Amino acid sequence: MRNAEWTIVSFRIPNSEFRIRLMRWVPGGVTAAAGFAASGIQAGIKRSRKPDLALVAAARPVAAAGVFTTNRVQAAPVLISRERLRRGRAQAVLINSGCANCLTGAAGMRDARRIARSLAAQLGIAERHVLVASTGLIGPRLPVAKVERALPALARQLSRRHHEAAAQAILTTDLHPKEAAVEARIAGRLVRVGGMAKGAGMIAPSMATMLCVLTTDAGIAPGLLARLLRDAAARTFGCISVDGDMSTNDTVFALASGASGAAIRAGGSSRETFAAMLEAVAGRLAERLVQDGEGAAKRMTVDVVGGRTAREAQACARQVAESPLVKTMLAGSDPNVGRIAAAAGASGAWFDPARLEIRVEGVRLVAGGMALPVPGTVLRRLLRRPRVRVLVHLHAGSSAWRMLTCDLTEEYVRINAGYAT
Amino acid sequence: MRNAEWTIVSFRIPNSEFRIRLMRWVPGGVTAAAGFAASGIQAGIKRSRKPDLALVAAARPVAAAGVFTTNRVQAAPVLISRERLRRGRAQAVLINSGCANCLTGAAGMRDARRIARSLAAQLGIAERHVLVASTGLIGPRLPVAKVERALPALARQLSRRHHEAAAQAILTTDLHPKEAAVEARIAGRLVRVGGMAKGAGMIAPSMATMLCVLTTDAGIAPGLLARLLRDAAARTFGCISVDGDMSTNDTVFALASGASGAAIRAGGSSRETFAAMLEAVAGRLAERLVQDGEGAAKRMTVDVVGGRTAREAQACARQVAESPLVKTMLAGSDPNVGRIAAAAGASGAWFDPARLEIRVEGVRLVAGGMALPVPGTVLRRLLRRPRVRVLVHLHAGSSAWRMLTCDLTEEYVRINAGYAT
Repeated sequence: MRNAEWTIVSFRIPNSEFRIRLMRWVPGGVTAAAGFAASGIQAGIKRSRKPDLALVAAARPVAAAGVFTTNRVQAAPVLISRERLRRGRAQAVLINSGCANCLTGAAGMRDARRIARSLAAQLGIAERHVLVASTGLIGPRLPVAKVERALPALARQLSRRHHEAAAQAILTTDLHPKEAAVEARIAGRLVRVGGMAKGAGMIAPSMATMLCVLTTDAGIAPGLLARLLRDAAARTFGCISVDGDMSTNDTVFALASGASGAAIRAGGSSRETFAAMLEAVAGRLAERLVQDGEGAAKRMTVDVVGGRTAREAQACARQVAESPLVKTMLAGSDPNVGRIAAAAGASGAWFDPARLEIRVEGVRLVAGGMALPVPGTVLRRLLRRPRVRVLVHLHAGSSAWRMLTCDLTEEYVRINAGYAT
Repeated sequence: MRNAEWTIVSFRIPNSEFRIRLMRWVPGGVTAAAGFAASGIQAGIKRSRKPDLALVAAARPVAAAGVFTTNRVQAAPVLISRERLRRGRAQAVLINSGCANCLTGAAGMRDARRIARSLAAQLGIAERHVLVASTGLIGPRLPVAKVERALPALARQLSRRHHEAAAQAILTTDLHPKEAAVEARIAGRLVRVGGMAKGAGMIAPSMATMLCVLTTDAGIAPGLLARLLRDAAARTFGCISVDGDMSTNDTVFALASGASGAAIRAGGSSRETFAAMLEAVAGRLAERLVQDGEGAAKRMTVDVVGGRTAREAQACARQVAESPLVKTMLAGSDPNVGRIAAAAGASGAWFDPARLEIRVEGVRLVAGGMALPVPGTVLRRLLRRPRVRVLVHLHAGSSAWRMLTCDLTEEYVRINAGYAT
């Protein structure tokens, strides 16, 4: 967490026009905004005896929205939460790690509904206001009895102070909890947006495999919240990739308590500021997801500029960011600019190969379609940096796209060759 | 090489109707067909002091065709050979490993033309009948002087016996040379089709990153040869994937000497038999490419059936075959059928998740969209096999597609994190 002074926040991930907002990072994660409490405990779902059950709850039903995986195969909690969000209201989010509750058919739907109902009874709230999310191994049934036995303690520990316990309990192979929160002034009131996320593997564009809960004390209609959440997710979580795999459980929730007294309106400047806050928090969480990618030692920003269309710039950025050869090159700090050129050329984006330009950390390595004679020692020094910026200029138009990714290491293979056992 | 008895050759890779041909595998690789000689030597292009220059030559100009990478960035030899094949005739193929001659601009074009011209002079043939291909590091210039110094010895060693020396000299990180040849009777004459290939990394569909030279002693018009070669390549090299990366240098050549006296006609059964022979040789070479994929310890066949369209079945097979999580699961023999379901669901292929069916080595693991309770020990035993068959039934139509791939191992990362140095 940076220190809590007022700063100019600039967004590194979004593929949008450059904007400056006066806001400041604050501690508090998913409970930084007024009106929310959280808790996280160990229910025994994971064999590792780590925390595996988290709860975020509001004092009353609040405006809520969600963005979900576009995978054809979707876990039971995704189907249930999507359905419940049609009314745009929720009061609690129950998340377990250690079991994805996916490929579990009608039984899995019953399991997810049952733990939601039990939580509703425990908290004395309406069952339809309980959202659920799961992450972990696909296939096994949810250990419902274990979850139910843990619910009283989970409810008892609900507190604004327990945001980090919640952030811990949603992790799988992540190394670190991921939290972020900002504060800004809207219509004379201090408004906060905060959140927590988990990621690590199965992280790909059009929804990383990830769970995220965002909360705010702004007041906003559910429909507008849903639109702004979709935009923010596309510009942040939609622009990162760890391994190009897409999960069955991806979920981003947003809940707005209105406790700050500030109202966000569709037409005004309040909307712009609030959208920027959402994007800032989602953006920082997305960066953390990549930083903490499975086995990742380094991050890479891939900027494609000069694309004929935004779609082509995006396809090119994605192809470079997901190329195993580019990612292993990064892991080995081993200069091989031809791999970047080959990935760009394979992306389907149109460009004249004789005009292709590639820079790594600002140093021009390819110009006019030709590799320039840059000493290997210089290149290796550039690639050894913990965060490497790659720029691909297609010289075919004026569209641009940015992707954020990490390296592909032996550690990634080690982790994923032995995940289920 | 299997023993040289007459056998029924069935094709494992092609995405076509089942066919049976009476043909037999024979030794001889790229010079198995009458009318061709080959050689391979060390010219000093590679720092590793391994053979790096290969030649395949016919006694006179013969019908020839090529299939090339669809990458926007194409190496100089690809541009030159494609141009020269417009006339459908060639007499010699000069291949170097150790340098891709790509991203080398006009100078790279001059370099490639120059070594072709020098070879033509050395052999006393027309320069326009010399095809060139390169594989290796992208970026550096071709060491023309070293190549030219080696040409006299390369020409001197041309012999029908030296097919394996040629197959050796085109390798990069491959562990083994790849050769195949078949013999069949067409119109009363014994006809042979043979070839050699290199692969290892940057192997993806719509042309693996690979070089391949096929030869035959059948007589065939260049236009028909080009069509049959395109089909055979699509059904073999187009259905394999090592790492999903596509190279700038992919090239498949076919040369037909006509020395057998058998003529292949567009309408007759000779065409069918010849097409099957081409596909058999290309198919076996493609299998060898996957078997010898960088760091690969195991192979996996992904069959998608019940797709709504062939395109969707193909997209689904490709997504499963290229998923890092599926490939690491294979490496670790670690059962996690959810990864296969997640990749299928992310492929864009339409299906009803409640009807999804997945089998591994014939054992049903998912049916009706639900994971079945198969003991982990059983699964691990299945996954430990050197070749694992995965079947994904989408129950959405009648289209099918097959992909052949290998596992993603720590060794792949080790190799590719240190390739340039």
